[in-house]
Amino acid sequence: MKNICLIIEYIGTNYCGFQRQRNGISIQQVLEEAIFKAINQKVNTVASGRTDAGVHALNQVVNFSCSCNIPSDKIHYHINQYLPKDIRIKKSFEVDENFNSRKSAISKTYFYKIYNGKNFSVFDEDRSLFFPYKLDFYLLNKGATLVKGQHNFSAFVCSNSTSKSFVRTIYSCHFKREGDYIFFEITGNGFLYNMVRILVGTLLEVGVKKRTIEDFKNLLNGADRKLAGKTVSAGGLYLKQVQYDTKGNLI
Amino acid sequence: MKNICLIIEYIGTNYCGFQRQRNGISIQQVLEEAIFKAINQKVNTVASGRTDAGVHALNQVVNFSCSCNIPSDKIHYHINQYLPKDIRIKKSFEVDENFNSRKSAISKTYFYKIYNGKNFSVFDEDRSLFFPYKLDFYLLNKGATLVKGQHNFSAFVCSNSTSKSFVRTIYSCHFKREGDYIFFEITGNGFLYNMVRILVGTLLEVGVKKRTIEDFKNLLNGADRKLAGKTVSAGGLYLKQVQYDTKGNLI
Repeated sequence: MKNICLIIEYIGTNYCGFQRQRNGISIQQVLEEAIFKAINQKVNTVASGRTDAGVHALNQVVNFSCSCNIPSDKIHYHINQYLPKDIRIKKSFEVDENFNSRKSAISKTYFYKIYNGKNFSVFDEDRSLFFPYKLDFYLLNKGATLVKGQHNFSAFVCSNSTSKSFVRTIYSCHFKREGDYIFFEITGNGFLYNMVRILVGTLLEVGVKKRTIEDFKNLLNGADRKLAGKTVSAGGLYLKQVQYDTKGNLI
Repeated sequence: MKNICLIIEYIGTNYCGFQRQRNGISIQQVLEEAIFKAINQKVNTVASGRTDAGVHALNQVVNFSCSCNIPSDKIHYHINQYLPKDIRIKKSFEVDENFNSRKSAISKTYFYKIYNGKNFSVFDEDRSLFFPYKLDFYLLNKGATLVKGQHNFSAFVCSNSTSKSFVRTIYSCHFKREGDYIFFEITGNGFLYNMVRILVGTLLEVGVKKRTIEDFKNLLNGADRKLAGKTVSAGGLYLKQVQYDTKGNLI
């Protein structure tokens, strides 16, 4: 048996998220069906984490065990033939038998894309958030800087989350502007359900001065979900990269 | 009766082109249905030109006659409510009763988007051409420059075209590079069926040195379609702008 790792890019728009669900087509289901067609084996894939419905990935990391004669670094060509055009494997390779995409991950980087101009293009639909309001960039990044470090993110989790602990450590967090677009990028050791989207929704309130920096700071010590801002749309969120403690450079 | 002009942006991927067809959903059909829902009147829309199946538009110009009390510059808000998310009216306004989007147009600008890097992203699917081969940019633009002026474009028209004349005048034509992307932009007084896509396909052959500049030049004097290069995919083509001889600045 070989442990195969895949680096996958996908547009989340047409899926109910990475993970298999009863109602809805998941990336995982489509991927496992394509693997079956390519290597004639039923496999169970493990991803670095579930992405929610509508969320995209540039470098989702997935692994599965199989016995197959195709060279590991060529397997993705075979699987790609059976994938729809909104999912593509960028790379495949063999990893240590103990490697587990989810458990071995030490941190993840997401970004959230915001269109801050006046004329939202149809080409940006489901790929970025339309936010045409004037933003104070200094305040945005002052807020983002506060997110760094270890905090209790109970205010920034979907109310039906089943997580036991709300404590996570954020290694970097900032906004950057590129023309009419604003990118919010965050790296942490883990993320709660909807955490990035609620953080963005709340920080945007800071940016338009609907909420003070002081108020935002207080939310980082374990506050009620109701006190934070709203969950911005899934279409602006991208899983950018997953970092591992293996010696090899996975991506 | 008022003559209303609309500036429309759309992603062509899910449509059989602008113009109504028996088999397939057209932009025109969806647009006229939305207009009917918005103002309760059946109208006949005229566009600056048909775009083919899969071709996009940033500023398609459409006009129609109607009698309605909604201020002309607000009509688009009402119609947009009934449009799917891949079609959006950017602007609406009243024009002279003699204005006709197609007949009044004096020139049009298209661009064609090429991804010239190694890793084609799923986010570029249906929105640009994947062309990972090494291109001689000097040759590309030498070829593009030859396209300027009046020529017989019979080599650059789909073989089942019904056009009577193949002579068109091109006012500007060039390639520009932005990172891994290459944009081919062309402005002319009119374009034959598939003309831009065959021009791009043939110029790319010049760019990879599969075809000489001399050979390309000979195609511009009225040659057989079979002698030109292939028709590149529709997904890379965008109607950028339409120019009119009216005094007002339409876009």
